[in-house]
Amino acid sequence: MALTGVLRPGFIQIRVLDLHASVEHYVARVGLHKVATGEDGRVYLKAADEIDHHSIVLRQAASAGFDLMAFKVAREADLGEFESRIKDFGYNVDHVPAGEQPGIGRRIGWTLESGHRLELYHAAEPSHPRPSFQNPEVWEHEPHGMRARRFDHAQLNGPHIERVLEFFEKVLDFSLVERIEGEDGLVAVFLSCGMKAHDIAFLNFPEPNKLHHVSFELETWNDLGHAADIIARYDVSIEIGPTRHGATQGRTIYFFDPSGNRNEVFAGSYTFYPDHPVRTWDARHIPKGVFYYERKIIESFLSVMT
Amino acid sequence: MALTGVLRPGFIQIRVLDLHASVEHYVARVGLHKVATGEDGRVYLKAADEIDHHSIVLRQAASAGFDLMAFKVAREADLGEFESRIKDFGYNVDHVPAGEQPGIGRRIGWTLESGHRLELYHAAEPSHPRPSFQNPEVWEHEPHGMRARRFDHAQLNGPHIERVLEFFEKVLDFSLVERIEGEDGLVAVFLSCGMKAHDIAFLNFPEPNKLHHVSFELETWNDLGHAADIIARYDVSIEIGPTRHGATQGRTIYFFDPSGNRNEVFAGSYTFYPDHPVRTWDARHIPKGVFYYERKIIESFLSVMT
Amino acid sequence: MALTGVLRPGFIQIRVLDLHASVEHYVARVGLHKVATGEDGRVYLKAADEIDHHSIVLRQAASAGFDLMAFKVAREADLGEFESRIKDFGYNVDHVPAGEQPGIGRRIGWTLESGHRLELYHAAEPSHPRPSFQNPEVWEHEPHGMRARRFDHAQLNGPHIERVLEFFEKVLDFSLVERIEGEDGLVAVFLSCGMKAHDIAFLNFPEPNKLHHVSFELETWNDLGHAADIIARYDVSIEIGPTRHGATQGRTIYFFDPSGNRNEVFAGSYTFYPDHPVRTWDARHIPKGVFYYERKIIESFLSVMT
Amino acid sequence: MALTGVLRPGFIQIRVLDLHASVEHYVARVGLHKVATGEDGRVYLKAADEIDHHSIVLRQAASAGFDLMAFKVAREADLGEFESRIKDFGYNVDHVPAGEQPGIGRRIGWTLESGHRLELYHAAEPSHPRPSFQNPEVWEHEPHGMRARRFDHAQLNGPHIERVLEFFEKVLDFSLVERIEGEDGLVAVFLSCGMKAHDIAFLNFPEPNKLHHVSFELETWNDLGHAADIIARYDVSIEIGPTRHGATQGRTIYFFDPSGNRNEVFAGSYTFYPDHPVRTWDARHIPKGVFYYERKIIESFLSVMT
Repeated sequence: MALTGVLRPGFIQIRVLDLHASVEHYVARVGLHKVATGEDGRVYLKAADEIDHHSIVLRQAASAGFDLMAFKVAREADLGEFESRIKDFGYNVDHVPAGEQPGIGRRIGWTLESGHRLELYHAAEPSHPRPSFQNPEVWEHEPHGMRARRFDHAQLNGPHIERVLEFFEKVLDFSLVERIEGEDGLVAVFLSCGMKAHDIAFLNFPEPNKLHHVSFELETWNDLGHAADIIARYDVSIEIGPTRHGATQGRTIYFFDPSGNRNEVFAGSYTFYPDHPVRTWDARHIPKGVFYYERKIIESFLSVMT
Repeated sequence: MALTGVLRPGFIQIRVLDLHASVEHYVARVGLHKVATGEDGRVYLKAADEIDHHSIVLRQAASAGFDLMAFKVAREADLGEFESRIKDFGYNVDHVPAGEQPGIGRRIGWTLESGHRLELYHAAEPSHPRPSFQNPEVWEHEPHGMRARRFDHAQLNGPHIERVLEFFEKVLDFSLVERIEGEDGLVAVFLSCGMKAHDIAFLNFPEPNKLHHVSFELETWNDLGHAADIIARYDVSIEIGPTRHGATQGRTIYFFDPSGNRNEVFAGSYTFYPDHPVRTWDARHIPKGVFYYERKIIESFLSVMT
Repeated sequence: MALTGVLRPGFIQIRVLDLHASVEHYVARVGLHKVATGEDGRVYLKAADEIDHHSIVLRQAASAGFDLMAFKVAREADLGEFESRIKDFGYNVDHVPAGEQPGIGRRIGWTLESGHRLELYHAAEPSHPRPSFQNPEVWEHEPHGMRARRFDHAQLNGPHIERVLEFFEKVLDFSLVERIEGEDGLVAVFLSCGMKAHDIAFLNFPEPNKLHHVSFELETWNDLGHAADIIARYDVSIEIGPTRHGATQGRTIYFFDPSGNRNEVFAGSYTFYPDHPVRTWDARHIPKGVFYYERKIIESFLSVMT
Repeated sequence: MALTGVLRPGFIQIRVLDLHASVEHYVARVGLHKVATGEDGRVYLKAADEIDHHSIVLRQAASAGFDLMAFKVAREADLGEFESRIKDFGYNVDHVPAGEQPGIGRRIGWTLESGHRLELYHAAEPSHPRPSFQNPEVWEHEPHGMRARRFDHAQLNGPHIERVLEFFEKVLDFSLVERIEGEDGLVAVFLSCGMKAHDIAFLNFPEPNKLHHVSFELETWNDLGHAADIIARYDVSIEIGPTRHGATQGRTIYFFDPSGNRNEVFAGSYTFYPDHPVRTWDARHIPKGVFYYERKIIESFLSVMT
C-alpha cells in the first residue's frame, strides 16, 4: 500500500518537576539517549531505533503533564494540505517556526476538543546516535536500561472523544482500531495511522488536556520481565504489571516518572490492517479489555493522571 | 498515514509432490489450520491471525515449486486502477473469475520478467477459524505446532530483478526497504507495501520462476526455539537456524516441506517507515547481511530451490 | 557432592470437590498427563519431565485441601534410617504398604507439629509417558497447556514452624535457604533438600494443616506469559501474576483449581548451594520479599487457603 | 538430600596470549567482573551470581590452553578425606598453600590420566561484587554483556576417559549423567556432582591435557539470542549456534576468546537426580546428541581446541 500523510508519532513534550531526576529516569531506567539541551532548558531524548532527532521533550514546570504531541508527515507539502483540512473541520491552526525545537522543521498546531494540542511537521534532522543503514548492525550501541526501542504512542484523557474520533478519521486519515463502549457511550478509542494497533488513544474524561500515559515499545515479553526487574531494583513507582491488555493485546507495565507522569513499556501487540473489523469491547467485558490477566480495573488507572 | 492500494500478501499457491504429507507438515508442524479442499484437489490453509479465507494453497503436481502469489488490495476499485498501470508498464493482464479458489473473489494476474505470476484481488470471505473482533481473546484456539501467526512473505528467485524492482516501486507503490549489492550489480531486493521489512523479496538468479522460500511469522525468538525443537523432534529437513539475518534483522530458521519447498519461520524484524533510507549491503558485507551470526553463506542457500 | 537421603518432592495428595473438573484443570490447563485412576476413585497425574509413576494425587472429598506430601529417598534402606531419626525426634511413624497408591512402594508417614502429614518412600515404577534415556529427544510428547515440567514444591501453612524448621534441618537434612522474619518472630521458611531454592515452604499460621499452594515448574518467563494467556482465555480464577518473588526470585503466577486449591506456576529461581548464607528478609522488606514487583502483599495471599 | 563432598566447579585457570584483549573479552563481552590482578600478572574474574572470590583465572603465556580446574568442597575436613581417597586410587597429591591465588585457601592437586590437573579447596573469601543475602535484590549490579551468571563447567579432551570416569565416580562421588558411545568405545562422559546435567565433561582424544571449552550459564534462550547479537556486533569469532545439544539438552553457542580458547554460553538444561538412568547416545545418534538442531557434527568441534 502507499504510505502517505501522517507517518507516525514524532515526539511528545511533557512537563516535569525535576529535570535532573527526570533525565536520570528516562535515560538510565527507560533506556533512552539524551541528545540535546535547549537554551530554554528543555531536554531532548530519543529511543534506540528512532531515526529522527528526538522523540521525548522534557520541560521543567510547576506541574507535571502534557504540553503537546507531534506527528511526522510524509512530505513537506502534506503540511499545507492538512492545514486546510484541519481548518475546514473548524479548528484554528497556528505555526511554529523551524528550530523552536532543535533538529525539527516548521510545525503546524491546533487544539482538539479534548483539550490537547497536536502538531504536524515533516522536516527532522537525523538522530544521534542513529541506527545505521549501510551494512547495519542490529544495534550500534548495546541496549541499556529497559531497552526502549521507540516512543510508541500516548493515551490522552479528555472530553468529547466522539469528536476527536471523527477528527482523526476524517481529517488525519487514521483508522479506528479498537473501541471500548460503556453503558453510557464511548469510553475509549485506539487510533492508528499505519499498521500498529495504536499510535494514539483517547479516553473519555471530564477534565480536558490530561495525560494518561506515554508509552515506549520493547521487543518482547522477556524485555518486559527485565523492565520489571529494573523497576523493582531501583524502587521506581509502579502501578501494575507485567500484565496484558485485552485491547491491543499489548503486554505491558505501567509505572511513573519522578514527576508522576505515567509511563508504559509494552510489547507484543498484533499487526493491524485497515480491512480489519473494529475490535469492540462492550460494557460487560471492559475489565478484561483493560487488564486481560487481572480481569478487573484498578482504581488508580481511572483516576490518577497528569 | 492513509493505507491504500496493495495491503499485504494474501496467499501463495505452491506445488507439492505428496498432498497428504504436505498437509501434515503445514498443519501439525508449522501450525496452520486446514480450511478447505477444492474439487480439483487443491488444499487451502490459513495461519492463526489471518482474517481472510486462506493464505496457503497446496496443489499436487509432478514437481514442487511456485504457481503464483496474490496480494490483497484495499478496495475492489483498486483492481481496475492497477490493471491499467500494469498494462501501461507493458505486461499482459489476465482475469481469474471469483470462486476459482474457494472464498476468493475475482483476481487479475500477470507475469514478471523474473518469470513469476503475481495476482491482485480484493474480495475474500472470512477465515474459519477467525480471530474474534468482539471482546476478542488473545486467541480462540490454543496455538499448536510452530505457532505460525501469518503467511508473511515469499522470496522468489529469477532474472531481471532491476525491472522487478522498478515494477514494484512504480506500479504497485511498494517501497524498497533493503538491497544487497554485489560486485556485478544488484543481488537482492526486499520490498514492502506497508510497515513490514518485507512483503516480498527477489534474488537475482539466471533461471526464471523459482521459489526460494515461503515465510511464516512467529511471535518471538522464543517461539523460534520451540520451532527448532519441533523440527528436530520430528526430523524435519532443516537447512540453517535458529539464526538471524542482517538484512531485515529477522530471526530465522530455514527448513523444507516434504516436497523440498523451502520454508522459513521468522520473528523480530524492525518496523519500517517510508522515510527510512534504504538499508544497503555491499559486496564485502553480504555474508553478514545474509546470516548475521554465521557471517558466511551456506552453499545450499544459493543453489537449492524449487 | 554425594546426593543422599531425601531426593525430592515425590507426590502430593490433595482433596478436590469435583474430580472431573479438577482433572480437566490439571490436564488441559496446567499441562499434566493423567496416568491412572485408582479403585477408590483417586486420580493420579504426572508432569512431563518426571520419571516416576505420578506426582499429583486428586481425591474427591467434601472439602478441598491437603492430605499428605511424600518425598522420595535415594535408597530403600534410607526408610529405616529416617524412621529411627523421626522417632528420635519424638514423632510417631506409621507404615503404608506398597500399592496403597498405584506404582508406589511402601511408605512411612508422620505428622508435623504444623499439622501436616509427610511421607517418605523409595520404590516407584516408571512414569508413562516417561522421558526417554536412550538417544532422548527434548520431549517425546509435544508440551501442552501451561507446559508444567514438574511438581516442584508446596507451601504449607500451620503453627510451630520453628519446630518444623528444626525437624527438617536435623532429621531430614534439609537446608534453610531463605527465611522471612517478622517483628514477632519467624514468618516463613524455605527449605531445600538439593540445589533448588525450595522443595517445601512453611508459613506461620494459627490453624494447622493448611495448604497454601501446590507449585509447578515452567521453563521460562516466556512460558509464564503463555500460562497467563491460558488462565485468561479460559477464565481460570487468578490471584496474582505474572510477577516475581523477592524470596527465591521465582517468577510466578498464582491461580486456583476448581475446588479453590491454590496453584502456582513458576520459573527462574536461582541455583542453591549449601555454602550460601541464609537469605533473610526482615519485617520492613517483607512486601518486596513476597511480591517483588508490586512491593505490597495482597490480602488474599495471607488469608485464603484450603 | 544431604549435600556433601564436592560442591561445584570453583574456578578454572586458562592460558591466554594477550591478557588485555582477554580481559576485555571476558568482561565486556561475556559479562564477567574483574576482581583482582595478582602480583604475577594473573587476572581474576567472576560471574554475577557467584559468591566466592573468583571463578576464572587468566594467565598470560606463549600458548593458550588449560592450566587447572578446581572444585570447592563442603568442609575443610573434606580435603583430607579426598586426599586419602585420591592417593588410594593411585595418584600423587600435591599441596598448594593458601594465597597462591588471592582469596582462596589451601588446595590439593593431582593429575588425571587424561593429562589434566584438578584441584580441591574449601576456603574462599566472598566475591566482590557479591549477591546480597539480606533482603536481596534480583541483582545489585545491572547485568551487562552476555549476562553470564556463573562459570558452569568445562569440557576437557584427553585419553583414558574410562579411567577418568571411574575416578570421578569412585573417588569424587560424581554421577555419570550422560555418555556417548561410539562404535569403538566410550566417546564422551558428562559428570555431575549435584543436580546439574554436568559439572565437567570429558571427550576421548589421543592428545592429553586439552581444553575443549569453558562454559558459562545464561538464564534463558532469550539471553542466548542477545549473546549471539553481541558476538556478531563485535565480530567475536563464532563456531556454531545458537543451537541445542541433544546431550544435556543445553541451548548453546560456541565461540572463541581472543587466544582461541573455546567458550560456551548455554542455558536450559534439565534438572538431574541420581535416580535417573544414564542418558546414553549410541553411535548412530551421535550427530543429534551433539547438535540437536543440525543433526550433524561440524569438523572444527572435533579438531580445534587449546
